Amino acid sequence: MASSMGTLDRSVVERIVRQVAQEYLGNGKKSAAPTLVVQASSRHMHVCRADMDILFGPGTELTIDRPLHQDGFYAAKEMVTIVGPRSRIISNLRILGPMRPQSQVELAFTDAIMLGFQDIPVRISGDIAGTPGAVIVGPKGVVEMKEGLIRAAIHVHMGPGDAAYYGVTKGDRMKLRIGGEAGLTFNNVHVRIDPKSKLNVHMDTDEANACGLHLTKDIELLK
Amino acid sequence: MASSMGTLDRSVVERIVRQVAQEYLGNGKKSAAPTLVVQASSRHMHVCRADMDILFGPGTELTIDRPLHQDGFYAAKEMVTIVGPRSRIISNLRILGPMRPQSQVELAFTDAIMLGFQDIPVRISGDIAGTPGAVIVGPKGVVEMKEGLIRAAIHVHMGPGDAAYYGVTKGDRMKLRIGGEAGLTFNNVHVRIDPKSKLNVHMDTDEANACGLHLTKDIELLK
Repeated sequence: MASSMGTLDRSVVERIVRQVAQEYLGNGKKSAAPTLVVQASSRHMHVCRADMDILFGPGTELTIDRPLHQDGFYAAKEMVTIVGPRSRIISNLRILGPMRPQSQVELAFTDAIMLGFQDIPVRISGDIAGTPGAVIVGPKGVVEMKEGLIRAAIHVHMGPGDAAYYGVTKGDRMKLRIGGEAGLTFNNVHVRIDPKSKLNVHMDTDEANACGLHLTKDIELLK
Repeated sequence: MASSMGTLDRSVVERIVRQVAQEYLGNGKKSAAPTLVVQASSRHMHVCRADMDILFGPGTELTIDRPLHQDGFYAAKEMVTIVGPRSRIISNLRILGPMRPQSQVELAFTDAIMLGFQDIPVRISGDIAGTPGAVIVGPKGVVEMKEGLIRAAIHVHMGPGDAAYYGVTKGDRMKLRIGGEAGLTFNNVHVRIDPKSKLNVHMDTDEANACGLHLTKDIELLK
């Protein structure tokens, strides 16, 4: 190779350098799209330290059942029962770890209807002010959540490099096109950026079932 | 009116005739969009005469519980229980009338999962060849359906006038944009044309819950 270097035209070298630089900086149209993982989140709970103490006993910790796609997050072995209006229940509600400052329950709308709720608000995780509450039953005690029931808005986790690639910033909305027989395009995918995040869309089970997420690999994230 | 006819300018008459013609022919950009009714269909069954005889007794007829939006169709008082793989059941499965040449069960994918199916195919109503079957239990007998379980593809019923307005023909796919916080666009809405049909989109409960159909009036049917 070295012996042939002298024969390369200057414009060819420039083009190669430009392509490589584009790939590194993520600005170029020709750089490969980042790998996109799209997942359905089943109903689950996030639990705070105080509620963990009540539900599972003082000082107890969550135990890892299965790691999630994002580093450091996991489905815990611990599960609870949620009691909705008119005493309808869903048992085996999985807790996701690690613990958080505030307890929160994420349900698909179908789950909420099953529990007897007329409606639950579509919110970004953590934004629970004014949302409905519910009674949570654990093996060691009962917590009456005053608020914290949400239907999680469809969202995409990404790192700063992914954000640069797509040209988006925190709080932007993107589109996610799902192909196939039940194909549809989600028009309000919230962008969440964190240096530790892998590119990853989370939707709920209603959304996954509506679009037949299991049926297709023809998926595209669009600005 | 007749006495003032003589005073109308020829151009005014021409404009009126053109507008009326456009409305009748549905070709004019200025004709008002037809009224669109979008509805979620809960899981239900269509029953044939032979199965009706077994499930509810020889010669029995369906009784109207509530008329549906399309003239001549209704939710019947009659309900059955469906038994899926691994003996999981859904009871109170509503029958829609009138009777049809073939029995058919329409489930949302969430319902199918609840019943223990790995998957059920997305089909247009009536296209049941090669689909899974199930055991149906009625008050007078049990039917083992060999096939007929589908997830109904999202579709729009319309008359020839609506079809002319949108510029579509039978078998075309349209888009249905749902606004609001959980907004999305269905990209494969099957067009079904019948002279007796009112303009009416049918989606299943997964689709309605995913898009928050109850949350918005910002809905648009697009070619």
